[in-house]
Amino acid sequence: MSHKIALIGFGTVGQGLCEILLDKEEYLNEKYGFDWQIVAVSDPVKGSVYCPDGLNVSKLLKLASDGISLDKYECKCDKAQARFGWDALKTIRESNADTVCELAFTNVETGQPAIDHCKAAFETGKNIVTSNKGPAAVDFAGMQSLAEKHNVKFMIEGTVVSGTPIINLAGGPLAGCSFSSIKGILNGTTNYILCQMEAGMEYETALQKAQELGYAEADPTGDVEGYDAMAKVIILANVVMDAPISAKEVEREGITGITPAMIAEAKAKQARWKLLGTIEKTTDGIKAAVKPEMVPLSHPLAGIMDATNALTFATDLMGDITIVGAGAGRIETGYSILTDLIAIHRGM
Amino acid sequence: MSHKIALIGFGTVGQGLCEILLDKEEYLNEKYGFDWQIVAVSDPVKGSVYCPDGLNVSKLLKLASDGISLDKYECKCDKAQARFGWDALKTIRESNADTVCELAFTNVETGQPAIDHCKAAFETGKNIVTSNKGPAAVDFAGMQSLAEKHNVKFMIEGTVVSGTPIINLAGGPLAGCSFSSIKGILNGTTNYILCQMEAGMEYETALQKAQELGYAEADPTGDVEGYDAMAKVIILANVVMDAPISAKEVEREGITGITPAMIAEAKAKQARWKLLGTIEKTTDGIKAAVKPEMVPLSHPLAGIMDATNALTFATDLMGDITIVGAGAGRIETGYSILTDLIAIHRGM
Repeated sequence: MSHKIALIGFGTVGQGLCEILLDKEEYLNEKYGFDWQIVAVSDPVKGSVYCPDGLNVSKLLKLASDGISLDKYECKCDKAQARFGWDALKTIRESNADTVCELAFTNVETGQPAIDHCKAAFETGKNIVTSNKGPAAVDFAGMQSLAEKHNVKFMIEGTVVSGTPIINLAGGPLAGCSFSSIKGILNGTTNYILCQMEAGMEYETALQKAQELGYAEADPTGDVEGYDAMAKVIILANVVMDAPISAKEVEREGITGITPAMIAEAKAKQARWKLLGTIEKTTDGIKAAVKPEMVPLSHPLAGIMDATNALTFATDLMGDITIVGAGAGRIETGYSILTDLIAIHRGM
Repeated sequence: MSHKIALIGFGTVGQGLCEILLDKEEYLNEKYGFDWQIVAVSDPVKGSVYCPDGLNVSKLLKLASDGISLDKYECKCDKAQARFGWDALKTIRESNADTVCELAFTNVETGQPAIDHCKAAFETGKNIVTSNKGPAAVDFAGMQSLAEKHNVKFMIEGTVVSGTPIINLAGGPLAGCSFSSIKGILNGTTNYILCQMEAGMEYETALQKAQELGYAEADPTGDVEGYDAMAKVIILANVVMDAPISAKEVEREGITGITPAMIAEAKAKQARWKLLGTIEKTTDGIKAAVKPEMVPLSHPLAGIMDATNALTFATDLMGDITIVGAGAGRIETGYSILTDLIAIHRGM
């Protein structure tokens, strides 16, 4: 039986996911028996279409790339079942999807509207897969317990470092370990800027270059002041270390205070500035922080350059386990959704 | 219902596993509902005991550490069901185990007696978890298809880089990716020796130090001539890249030809010698090799020092994903068995 998917939001991540699904259709079916259908797409700008028998993904992508509303989708099902213009909540509640991929724009501080989307999905017996940090950062425990109550899954690999396996690594192959600390480079934009500054560029020029490359947004505050990394730290503390902390418990400092003189000082000390996110179990409880640290060149995280991300789990049984990979990107974040879809499929 | 386990071999790995299981009994039960029983242990030197109602693991460990045969185990079950002196095959065939942990001494070239142990387990409906390279390196396809035929699992995380997740990372969180190459430092002993040589030590002295630390065996051929890494390359090619190759298709060169002059030359070139295992998909088919390579210091694998292992997957969707961790050790290899047991439990 096909795994029926509804997409809430059809921007870069949703479209990236669709491209991967099309590209890997045969591979996923042959290798894992994973057979899927996109039954609904709802986007406040790009339009909305639902058909319980499944939509043609190539046609959806074509409409989006041509800038034509999804409301103009021509459904080939012979039962005239297609529905148009459904908003996110109606799509989540009334579609026949097994899983809702929540990829809409969300306010990270309030977690809305993603939190309401998740609740609606769980309450109607649907799994959530999301790369939106909001729900997990604002109310992981609430989301998780509501999902469990309705016997569905709340999957969030994409909330931390795109598709590089962090959440599913900790909860899968490292499930038997417990973690005394997690430390990592969780924001590619700031790592890129620091690398450029080390190569001699001024902060403003490096930021501009990051913006040109699409790493940094027009308003770079979320990255350079550490808010993006902070949300990931909160999620990791909650999900991976069973430590329910919120934003006010995270010490936060961005990279805007790093001067060329400080870069030179680090160089002279055989070290390098990195914006590190850290969660540690201490005798006084959990300590969480995002702040620039001068890392000796001999440290494994010192060699992580440009927009690459990396994270070290300090484990009780395996010592340090470090994973290094991409932290962003259209296909990479699309993959984070796919990896969770496969995990749900295998647990079905 | 308890997951019933038989241990074939009760050396460092088997004992390490038992220590972890005891230590984590409550954690594994609470967090994953994983409830286990050791029902049998069979070791050609340390003796053999079986009780269908389960054995007391602390008592087993005490006997082993006191050098007393397991045949002297005093079983507390009230039905006098305990059996003593069963060899490996009888234990595998006739015990009530769900899963056999195959941890006996095995010839890597023939894969025996582990291959016969695996066959006996599969044919009697039991899963195999093993850190023995033999079965997977000599006949992965045969083992896998026999396991599938009998609807049981063939789990081998511990065959490559102990409990650092490689097999289960590739088959789990990276399941949606395909790999164009895998490249890694797969042998800790040789990496340690090369690091010591870079620090100024002669090869012979470095080898001796590695032997003193328990990294290298009295006969170091398997490590220093690249046979150990080669077995891992064969397993990775077969398991992770669906490329059925055998030993004769792997180019193999150890580290015994590396001279202080070569080390100095690398240093001058801002590089470092590493013994790398590589598997690449090329237009001419799969190319596999184990050989020393001069790696630029800017390469992520250059920074992997001492006995640490690391592996980079070149993926189609995520770019390079690198994982770094311990490659050996009593608890680390014991953990590789636990991680597979948990995976089987979750799939039950």
